[in-house]
Amino acid sequence: MTNTLDAWRIGQEPAYHAAGDEITGYAAAYAARLPVMLKGPTGCGKTRFVEHMAWRLGRPLVTVSCHEDMTASDLVGRYLLGPEGTHWQDGPLTLAVRYGGICYLDEVVEARQDTTVIIHALTDNRRVLPLEKKGELVSAHPDFQLVISYNPGYQSVLKDLKESTKQRFCAMDFDYPAPEIETTIVAAQSGLDDGVSRQLVQIGGKSRNLRGHGLDEGASTRMLIHAGRLIREGLPLRQACALALITPLTDDPDIRVALQDAVDACA
Amino acid sequence: MTNTLDAWRIGQEPAYHAAGDEITGYAAAYAARLPVMLKGPTGCGKTRFVEHMAWRLGRPLVTVSCHEDMTASDLVGRYLLGPEGTHWQDGPLTLAVRYGGICYLDEVVEARQDTTVIIHALTDNRRVLPLEKKGELVSAHPDFQLVISYNPGYQSVLKDLKESTKQRFCAMDFDYPAPEIETTIVAAQSGLDDGVSRQLVQIGGKSRNLRGHGLDEGASTRMLIHAGRLIREGLPLRQACALALITPLTDDPDIRVALQDAVDACA
Amino acid sequence: MTNTLDAWRIGQEPAYHAAGDEITGYAAAYAARLPVMLKGPTGCGKTRFVEHMAWRLGRPLVTVSCHEDMTASDLVGRYLLGPEGTHWQDGPLTLAVRYGGICYLDEVVEARQDTTVIIHALTDNRRVLPLEKKGELVSAHPDFQLVISYNPGYQSVLKDLKESTKQRFCAMDFDYPAPEIETTIVAAQSGLDDGVSRQLVQIGGKSRNLRGHGLDEGASTRMLIHAGRLIREGLPLRQACALALITPLTDDPDIRVALQDAVDACA
Amino acid sequence: MTNTLDAWRIGQEPAYHAAGDEITGYAAAYAARLPVMLKGPTGCGKTRFVEHMAWRLGRPLVTVSCHEDMTASDLVGRYLLGPEGTHWQDGPLTLAVRYGGICYLDEVVEARQDTTVIIHALTDNRRVLPLEKKGELVSAHPDFQLVISYNPGYQSVLKDLKESTKQRFCAMDFDYPAPEIETTIVAAQSGLDDGVSRQLVQIGGKSRNLRGHGLDEGASTRMLIHAGRLIREGLPLRQACALALITPLTDDPDIRVALQDAVDACA
Amino acid sequence: MTNTLDAWRIGQEPAYHAAGDEITGYAAAYAARLPVMLKGPTGCGKTRFVEHMAWRLGRPLVTVSCHEDMTASDLVGRYLLGPEGTHWQDGPLTLAVRYGGICYLDEVVEARQDTTVIIHALTDNRRVLPLEKKGELVSAHPDFQLVISYNPGYQSVLKDLKESTKQRFCAMDFDYPAPEIETTIVAAQSGLDDGVSRQLVQIGGKSRNLRGHGLDEGASTRMLIHAGRLIREGLPLRQACALALITPLTDDPDIRVALQDAVDACA
Amino acid sequence: MTNTLDAWRIGQEPAYHAAGDEITGYAAAYAARLPVMLKGPTGCGKTRFVEHMAWRLGRPLVTVSCHEDMTASDLVGRYLLGPEGTHWQDGPLTLAVRYGGICYLDEVVEARQDTTVIIHALTDNRRVLPLEKKGELVSAHPDFQLVISYNPGYQSVLKDLKESTKQRFCAMDFDYPAPEIETTIVAAQSGLDDGVSRQLVQIGGKSRNLRGHGLDEGASTRMLIHAGRLIREGLPLRQACALALITPLTDDPDIRVALQDAVDACA
Repeated sequence: MTNTLDAWRIGQEPAYHAAGDEITGYAAAYAARLPVMLKGPTGCGKTRFVEHMAWRLGRPLVTVSCHEDMTASDLVGRYLLGPEGTHWQDGPLTLAVRYGGICYLDEVVEARQDTTVIIHALTDNRRVLPLEKKGELVSAHPDFQLVISYNPGYQSVLKDLKESTKQRFCAMDFDYPAPEIETTIVAAQSGLDDGVSRQLVQIGGKSRNLRGHGLDEGASTRMLIHAGRLIREGLPLRQACALALITPLTDDPDIRVALQDAVDACA
Repeated sequence: MTNTLDAWRIGQEPAYHAAGDEITGYAAAYAARLPVMLKGPTGCGKTRFVEHMAWRLGRPLVTVSCHEDMTASDLVGRYLLGPEGTHWQDGPLTLAVRYGGICYLDEVVEARQDTTVIIHALTDNRRVLPLEKKGELVSAHPDFQLVISYNPGYQSVLKDLKESTKQRFCAMDFDYPAPEIETTIVAAQSGLDDGVSRQLVQIGGKSRNLRGHGLDEGASTRMLIHAGRLIREGLPLRQACALALITPLTDDPDIRVALQDAVDACA
Repeated sequence: MTNTLDAWRIGQEPAYHAAGDEITGYAAAYAARLPVMLKGPTGCGKTRFVEHMAWRLGRPLVTVSCHEDMTASDLVGRYLLGPEGTHWQDGPLTLAVRYGGICYLDEVVEARQDTTVIIHALTDNRRVLPLEKKGELVSAHPDFQLVISYNPGYQSVLKDLKESTKQRFCAMDFDYPAPEIETTIVAAQSGLDDGVSRQLVQIGGKSRNLRGHGLDEGASTRMLIHAGRLIREGLPLRQACALALITPLTDDPDIRVALQDAVDACA
Repeated sequence: MTNTLDAWRIGQEPAYHAAGDEITGYAAAYAARLPVMLKGPTGCGKTRFVEHMAWRLGRPLVTVSCHEDMTASDLVGRYLLGPEGTHWQDGPLTLAVRYGGICYLDEVVEARQDTTVIIHALTDNRRVLPLEKKGELVSAHPDFQLVISYNPGYQSVLKDLKESTKQRFCAMDFDYPAPEIETTIVAAQSGLDDGVSRQLVQIGGKSRNLRGHGLDEGASTRMLIHAGRLIREGLPLRQACALALITPLTDDPDIRVALQDAVDACA
Repeated sequence: MTNTLDAWRIGQEPAYHAAGDEITGYAAAYAARLPVMLKGPTGCGKTRFVEHMAWRLGRPLVTVSCHEDMTASDLVGRYLLGPEGTHWQDGPLTLAVRYGGICYLDEVVEARQDTTVIIHALTDNRRVLPLEKKGELVSAHPDFQLVISYNPGYQSVLKDLKESTKQRFCAMDFDYPAPEIETTIVAAQSGLDDGVSRQLVQIGGKSRNLRGHGLDEGASTRMLIHAGRLIREGLPLRQACALALITPLTDDPDIRVALQDAVDACA
Repeated sequence: MTNTLDAWRIGQEPAYHAAGDEITGYAAAYAARLPVMLKGPTGCGKTRFVEHMAWRLGRPLVTVSCHEDMTASDLVGRYLLGPEGTHWQDGPLTLAVRYGGICYLDEVVEARQDTTVIIHALTDNRRVLPLEKKGELVSAHPDFQLVISYNPGYQSVLKDLKESTKQRFCAMDFDYPAPEIETTIVAAQSGLDDGVSRQLVQIGGKSRNLRGHGLDEGASTRMLIHAGRLIREGLPLRQACALALITPLTDDPDIRVALQDAVDACA
């Protein structure tokens, strides 16, 4: 986090398998410098997609996981008191705005509302970032783009983006990858062969069928990769699935039995 | 944000197509230096209108997006600690008051209540801004004017302007532009020809008919412009509308089908 | 806001038309140095009355609009950090107490509860202001008086003056002025002739009849003056009333029609 | 508020007319250095009584009006930053503890809960005041006593003294004085003769009969004195009662008529 | 509160009359350095017991009354800004941990939850106190012990110790002393003879029978001692009981009559 | 808590008796550097297990008990003001990340939400810790691992890990040890022989059968050890069980009788 964005460049191509026309869509939005909102469930690849696009577009990517205690100062920066008095410390968003990165605010709806002033000024024709405490109005670098993620299943009436915020973004839906693609992903990232990876993907698919029938969400692709890595470290498939899939997903004995059955059926 | 308002001057005429007598009305209110409240839905052109009027009147425009964590200090300014001890940093409102700009507080009802003391002292015959922490009473520059926006559809009993605040403002209603005007706007700002722009405006109109039938708000003019820009970047109309209109507006499958039908009918 | 109260002196007589015996009543309360509470709806002239009395009694008037984030420190003062370390900055109330002004706390019930300690010590036989952070007990100047305003229509069970606070004040009721008086006020402050001013006052009266039938409050005298000024700037009466009266007062279409009818009937 | 308690000494005997054995009771509690709680409605003379007892016992009296934003630091003191770095500023309670005054915490139940630590350590056999921020444990001066007031009609389940706090205090009930005594008090403090004072006391008595029938509390003795002073300044009795009694007590038209009838009957 | 614990040593044996095997139980817990929780109603002698045990074991006792605004910093210490920059000020708990005292947190459940981190690290096999702000991990002195009190009648679902906290403590029940013992205590601490003391204890016993029938708690032993001291100062028993028992305990007229009857029956 | 992790190394092997394949499972997760979540009731050995694994893997262990006032700064570190101006103080998590320890966040769900940003960045393929206030992005030491505990019985809808957080962890279930193992543990840690230890374990087992029938949780292994230590200090078994088991667990008289019966049956 020096004052340039080198630390945020993505060295190697992050593997990404397109499910549809999302790459051309995103590329057009970036070309028009429109802000983008990625919608979809946990762990289905939104973060991976934005990493891939940042690599493809040759832009540094500054990722921030938002949370309910996050304020605008956490994004924008603040004064710190040092031996020479105060000096200004750019926050992660300011770095991206100033030096032309893509800033990805993961689950921005969790952040406190003072982020609104930032999002609005950066996403209309002004494209400026007001650093009110510093008395500076930063015009966005031509290469800057704002991306946010949003999980529709999470939001409540009390905690949602305002309509006047939502309407500033292009939006794209994401879901779990198709089985063939997911098998390739699991194999590539766990180091397993395709056979075991396919078993894990089948298990993942069955867990996703339980969504709404006792599970809030099914196993994410990330969880399947975790199971794969444990198998690579020598654990049998059943123990790996227990650690990486079943035990994290639920404490309900019936659902656990259903998940265990799914594992046994695929093993 | 230097201490003069040059950074806030509007260089080029912001395109604005009047829907009625709002330009003479605003001009009279400015001539009488009465504060103005702009009422209307998201993205219907309130901000554009105030930019246009600021340009027309030759006044700098200081825009602030308010939010629920915003306090009076964010508007007025604060002391900062530096190597020489503290120095005062004028906030955006103070700059406008001191040097004669128009200050536009977007969605002021979101801000915390200590903005009340400011609004009241600036909007009655006193026309002063008390900088309580600085011990200064700033008399407003003769050219200063306060403008606020207000979305009637948003407010709740718990969060509304006090009657004693509302009654200090002249108010003007805004709504989406008429189709012919909106077509011209979309064409001008997206770089498309009138034919495709008219298609987008028709789609927008259909989406607005769904307001109250599953949509909180229809597509704003801004969204239509976004779709137009994506088309300019080479996306087909359907993909552009999916990205810029349908996916941001709703996650309800039925409403999405209805919006998609509207797109298909106009394509 | 220098350390004396010259900035708060009222140079010219603020026009005030008495509705009853409120001038003698207030004068007696001031002579006995009893604190006074002014009760009445928004914009009916409470502020104007206290300005008039301050002028009549030759006392500086320090007005503070209270709000729900206001703390005692905002009224009393605070330490500020400067190059020489901290120095004390008297707040507006302290200035009035120390140098003998009338301090008018507008809508004091909005302020936070730590103002209670101040109000109590200043309004019983002690007549002192404890500056706790400074370790100073300021005895009120013999000419000091505390005045507060209070809108009975606003208060809720959760937010009201404590009985032990209320009972420390003499109280006076205020309401909109009688038509003849209000016509004179509107004419004087808008620069219109009596004919148009009378029309505006009639419109105002009709709007006040709608109080409780869809309107929280009718048009204040201030709103009528605003309409008059817009007419002076060249707007026709209907447009001026739309801007200054109807649109600010309500968004209900039926009430707007009723208000428009009232305008048409008087035009 | 120098570091000794001279500013808090009571120079003249505060007039007090005993209603029962409260003077001997308080004197015994002071002799045993037991803390005392005064219970009763607003303005019935609790503050006056403790002033009288402080004068009678020759002790300085430090009075603090508590409120819901008051913290222990407001009572105990705090560090202030000055040119020499920080220095400690004793709060009002610490002054009384250190130099042997009576500290009267008016409506202590309003204060925040961190006052508990103070009250407990001062009211059991330790009789110490921990200045935690200063790292000092102040042993109470032998003459120190803690007195609090408490209005049983005010408290709710959510805001009450803890049982473990209440049980540390001796308690005394207070109510409005008997008519003869109250007449003497009103006459003495307003400068009126006994005849008009008796009229005012009769009016006060009638208002107290309305308690629970539309009034939260009747007119306090203080209000009667206010009316008396306005009469002394030349107002007729009806106007004085309107200002000092009726208008402050209620906005209910029926209750106002009832109060007005009470005034008329006694005038 | 110097940096050693001398100020916290208990010079004289605090009188304590054991009701059962609590002295051997506590001594064993101290010998095993297990933390102890004292359970029981207000004023039944928990504080006295821990004072007695501290004296018996020859350990300094640091007592802290907890409250709902208390944070871990109040217990652990904080940095203070002085002329040499900041220096660390040990809080009361840290003093006990560092120098080997018994720390008694009275009603710890009232304190804020960040005390949890402290309690857990001090009450398992780590026996350490992390001073996170100082970057120091204080290993408890071998003589250190933590004691807390807990009133089961007070706790609600919303405010209770976590199960994982409770299970770290040995616990002992306390209740009011048996009449013979309580008589001895009252006599010793009020200076009265046994006869009057026995009367007071009988009155106390009757008040405790009213618990759950209109009283939250009966008269504590402390209240009986207060009544005794007032009698020693010359008040008759009825007045002393009114001041020290009846008026503090309740405002309910029926319960007051019942308590008065209890006094009369024993007088 | 120097800047290296020596203070956090575990000198001696913490005794741990495996109940199943948890040791191989954890070792595989550590080998793959996957984060781990330990699920189970209070005091069943989760902390002991992670201590054992840290010792077995030769890694320092930094344990933090989370609580509802804990913020990210408490974990990550903060600037402190000293005579040379500010300097940065690494928090416990940062120490583990920087120097390669295992960081165990006990009951992390209690902490405030700004810990989310930390957990997410440390538990996906980034493995970085953003010190936003310092402007530093710490890449995790290759040996770093994050472990959290989670008690499913505690969580409510309002306070739970987000699904997007949970899915980042491998998870393992814990429960009380089997009787034979628990007997060995109690004997080893209390210094008692196996006979009495077995009695205590039987009592513990009976208490756990009462879970859901009046007890929130049964006696933890820790409580049994406490009872054992009190017996070692000379208390009879019944008194030791009363102090260490029955009185801490409940105040319900019926449940106490049931627990007492369980003790008597085993004594």
